[in-house]
Amino acid sequence: MQFLNKINSPADVKELNTDEMTKLAQEIRKLLVNVISKTGGHLAPNLGVVELTLALHKVFNTPSDKIVWDVGHQSYVHKIITGRREIFDTLRQYGGLSGFPKRSESAHDAFGTGHSSTSISAALGMAVARDLNGDNYNVIAVIGDGALTGGMAIEALNNAGVLQKKIIVILNDNEMSISENVGALSEYLCRLRTDPTYSHLKTDLESLIKSIPTIGEHVANTARRVKDTLKYFLAPGMLFEQLGFTYIGPVDGHNLDGLIDIMERAKNIDKPVLVHVITKKGKGYLPAETNPDKFHGTGAFEITTGEKITVEGAPKTYTEVFGDTLVKLAESNPNIVAITAAMRDGTGLTKFFERFPERAFDVGIAEQHAVTMAAGLAANNMQPVVAIYSTFLQRSYDQVLHDVCMQNLPVVFCLDRAGLVGDDGYTHHGIFDYSYLRMMPAMTIMAPKDENELQHMLYTALALKRPVAIRYPRGSGLGVVCDEELKLLPYGKAEELRRGKDVCIWAAGSMVASALAVASQLKNSGFDAGVVNMRFIKPLDEEFLIQCATSYSNLVVMEENVLAGGVGSEILELLNKNDVLRDTKVLTFGIPDKLVPHGDKKLLFKDIELDVPGMTKHIIEWLAEENGGSVWRRNV
Amino acid sequence: MQFLNKINSPADVKELNTDEMTKLAQEIRKLLVNVISKTGGHLAPNLGVVELTLALHKVFNTPSDKIVWDVGHQSYVHKIITGRREIFDTLRQYGGLSGFPKRSESAHDAFGTGHSSTSISAALGMAVARDLNGDNYNVIAVIGDGALTGGMAIEALNNAGVLQKKIIVILNDNEMSISENVGALSEYLCRLRTDPTYSHLKTDLESLIKSIPTIGEHVANTARRVKDTLKYFLAPGMLFEQLGFTYIGPVDGHNLDGLIDIMERAKNIDKPVLVHVITKKGKGYLPAETNPDKFHGTGAFEITTGEKITVEGAPKTYTEVFGDTLVKLAESNPNIVAITAAMRDGTGLTKFFERFPERAFDVGIAEQHAVTMAAGLAANNMQPVVAIYSTFLQRSYDQVLHDVCMQNLPVVFCLDRAGLVGDDGYTHHGIFDYSYLRMMPAMTIMAPKDENELQHMLYTALALKRPVAIRYPRGSGLGVVCDEELKLLPYGKAEELRRGKDVCIWAAGSMVASALAVASQLKNSGFDAGVVNMRFIKPLDEEFLIQCATSYSNLVVMEENVLAGGVGSEILELLNKNDVLRDTKVLTFGIPDKLVPHGDKKLLFKDIELDVPGMTKHIIEWLAEENGGSVWRRNV
Repeated sequence: MQFLNKINSPADVKELNTDEMTKLAQEIRKLLVNVISKTGGHLAPNLGVVELTLALHKVFNTPSDKIVWDVGHQSYVHKIITGRREIFDTLRQYGGLSGFPKRSESAHDAFGTGHSSTSISAALGMAVARDLNGDNYNVIAVIGDGALTGGMAIEALNNAGVLQKKIIVILNDNEMSISENVGALSEYLCRLRTDPTYSHLKTDLESLIKSIPTIGEHVANTARRVKDTLKYFLAPGMLFEQLGFTYIGPVDGHNLDGLIDIMERAKNIDKPVLVHVITKKGKGYLPAETNPDKFHGTGAFEITTGEKITVEGAPKTYTEVFGDTLVKLAESNPNIVAITAAMRDGTGLTKFFERFPERAFDVGIAEQHAVTMAAGLAANNMQPVVAIYSTFLQRSYDQVLHDVCMQNLPVVFCLDRAGLVGDDGYTHHGIFDYSYLRMMPAMTIMAPKDENELQHMLYTALALKRPVAIRYPRGSGLGVVCDEELKLLPYGKAEELRRGKDVCIWAAGSMVASALAVASQLKNSGFDAGVVNMRFIKPLDEEFLIQCATSYSNLVVMEENVLAGGVGSEILELLNKNDVLRDTKVLTFGIPDKLVPHGDKKLLFKDIELDVPGMTKHIIEWLAEENGGSVWRRNV
Repeated sequence: MQFLNKINSPADVKELNTDEMTKLAQEIRKLLVNVISKTGGHLAPNLGVVELTLALHKVFNTPSDKIVWDVGHQSYVHKIITGRREIFDTLRQYGGLSGFPKRSESAHDAFGTGHSSTSISAALGMAVARDLNGDNYNVIAVIGDGALTGGMAIEALNNAGVLQKKIIVILNDNEMSISENVGALSEYLCRLRTDPTYSHLKTDLESLIKSIPTIGEHVANTARRVKDTLKYFLAPGMLFEQLGFTYIGPVDGHNLDGLIDIMERAKNIDKPVLVHVITKKGKGYLPAETNPDKFHGTGAFEITTGEKITVEGAPKTYTEVFGDTLVKLAESNPNIVAITAAMRDGTGLTKFFERFPERAFDVGIAEQHAVTMAAGLAANNMQPVVAIYSTFLQRSYDQVLHDVCMQNLPVVFCLDRAGLVGDDGYTHHGIFDYSYLRMMPAMTIMAPKDENELQHMLYTALALKRPVAIRYPRGSGLGVVCDEELKLLPYGKAEELRRGKDVCIWAAGSMVASALAVASQLKNSGFDAGVVNMRFIKPLDEEFLIQCATSYSNLVVMEENVLAGGVGSEILELLNKNDVLRDTKVLTFGIPDKLVPHGDKKLLFKDIELDVPGMTKHIIEWLAEENGGSVWRRNV
């Protein structure tokens, strides 16, 4: 690492010539592959932006110039060359570097990201602030072609076009969305890259006009007028020009000279500029170049082969069970359609897309549209299943409420990655959904205790023909056997898993297994705990809840969701309404009102004492309290 | 009403010739003005779409053909001619017609709307459903140029462009957004309408090419190639063409023959079509033509003059107090900037825009962008104040959480129209914000008891330099005197308004006045009630809450928000955590888990027993209960 070892800040990059930068790029790629093969992370996107990032830091001066990395999973190279090289191997590890830009991590991270399509809005705000403050720095948003399909990115382009502040939008076009064919905008970008019309027409036209003999004033005038106007029309990025941007590009995103040249040009334009950069995802590491999807976000892998390092005999993931069950149900129910927002693989829909291409819709990064399109389908006899990660459904909060629930339409939401997701950290934890969904009239919410129950829940949800959300965690199931035959779960009924005497634990979804483990631990300490699998978060099994509250007098609630407005809160509402709080102690466990960082899930759970030992300890103390008072997670 | 009286269904419109339809249009305008002058409502938008609506119903057949009215406030004419003429005078009245399309109101209302920019998504879903079902109807989305700036509309265009399903998007371009200059897209539409380039260039070019003498094969080939390509570039709606739509228009939206002709053409195109219709807001009623903004949504008015019928001596509205205070604060604080999403008047920012044009930003209907742009500003030393109605901030749930709260940035959200809004009904009630905001880490939430407190809260919020939301109701304040000098409210502290003995009422914002009235009523029944103005919903004054809970033993909570996850729920969480629920009875009042319809606010409050008599009655019954059990709003 001859060059990389000397890069301690962007100033060190500026010292290098293009040849040296090219070698540096190679070293960075090696570091990326080495570290990510161990830590996991977003490999392909970062391999694709090595030269782009170097060129940005060659031409601009962070932290005084501001770079906003859209989504942010492509900011590793930026992190490496802005003073975080030596701790890069702590990437996504508990206590280590985040996989996303964080203002708290470095002054070079101008804006924290994680969710898609925010960068142009943030950059525009910064540019406005700069001008109001009389400052003179550059603001750069780096956004992928996928993220550009998110509505808020277009809202921002539209606003930036009219405000005419100096901002630079780098469109990192990695040709990925195209194969997926998710939007007309992608097709447009593809034409910009490939359609010879765009490059040849101008030349052709000029030669045509030159070939016109001098033939009277009228024709000459017309010719001049046509020529002037055509200049406008023939700018290859006319769509962006029409939105008020100066378009420059496309430029090869792996050619350092070209990149540096175009950045310098962009820097000198005193209005909104869009720089179209063509990059190759996975560039420089063959397995990732060949299969960029697989290496978009990856777990640990074997460098020489590119093979994922998998745990032998790991149980099927919830994602897989969801995907398989949906295909099974769709075989006999032609009304089922599936919708994903640029996550067909992540949500487990790949098989569905193969089996039922005409009933499968990938709308791109456009969660709002996904939900309302589902409402339109549901209003006309279809049964859409919308598969979106819990954290991304936050983007559609209003559409779920306004378009689905208020019209009581049969849309089934399948929320993968609910609860703490681990390595991706707080922007990606799916820990708000119980709270934000249960306030919506007509909504039904379920959470499975294991992967077998997930399949029954999906079957039940589709039979209900009303708005339903099912939320389940990231990763492997519990390894239980999945029933061959699907069954309907009784609506709004909880499942008693274990009868006890001293305390009754009501657990939601992912916390049921923990509740059973806690009950075992309590047994060792002489307490006999009952365990209830809630199954339905809304409507909650009120009758059985009251029965448990009155017969046990000690009720514990466990949820992998924020405490504020969550399941514990709902249970308190119901117990209060039924006037049993005066005779029942309640202890609620959930996510506290603070940001939970990234890292190994086990460590995160331990940190907030939501792990089995932590909760067991709390319950024992609580049960032992003489005055019988209720204690609620004092330490968080 | 010679023609109108015979129109009982769209079939009756089809019988008329253009002359008769023109007369019908006049009669409809008369009805609109007559009714809305009494009921209030969206006058100007409906006057603008009379001919458009008639042409739609002449050419298409609802309910088998589906029309989705974006936002929906322009659907009055549609309602009048689809069997609701005779009850049109019940518009927006309790128990009467809704001001928006409702599936439950008529089979002709294919999709309920209220919030902006949903129509293309819904229409696309319907078109997909149609094709999967093997049906053969038309799907039409009618969307204004303002709504088109909402990101989800572009997400939908983008998706529709690639799916190539047969849908018709009617772009109802009423030239309104232009004067406001809110976006580059608006400017583009303006160019389509007005730039002679678009209409003349093609002609010019054709004459130019014709004038070229035959001069060898090469030039001829070039000329042919240029000509072919130019056809593509010179389509006036090229931006839409590039997104995969066939663009037709612009057409005069008040010329019935032209409209019918263009609709027939659109109907025969078997792929996505965008029909660009130019309408005039307020058409046919001079005061509304002259001042379409004022008549966009209006209260009752005097027909001959167009003057609003105002209540003499009505107190200043919360909106006005907010606007005046912000101007005052901005005089001495140059870091304050204001952002609105197409609601500068509705949110009270008009004066701010006049006084500080360089610090005022109307981003158009783009709530997501508004919030993240504010985050960008706040990340660079500005203090943005984002003024968005409570119901529309739902669109930015993720941006408030992900971009503002997770980065702890000093953005102040001013949520007007919080609580029940009355006539606009359930799509517009701002009754979820306490619940959806209080789960966000780092968020502070305040609610003023009156307009005087609002100004102090705004001052306090800006001093806090962290994420803060202030929510206040629609309409007049209480008529209290506003202090000259602004003061800082102690952070997280409640205000005791009345000391009692038997019961203590904790009231949030708009409910404080009701709580005081209830306390007076209780006095008459022999109960001595304390009243606390909560001021801070988050962080809640936990210390004083515990003190009240233990000293009174009977605690009542009042909020104008859904009960699920709201303030009552928060109080239960805190009391449980502090172990005082076993000795304190709690009764919570709020909005039940069902849709609250439109109509006079007083009637709505009565309906859900959130009015003073309803709550007083409940409290008396509850206090009188011998066993001291807690009862929670049994009837809702």
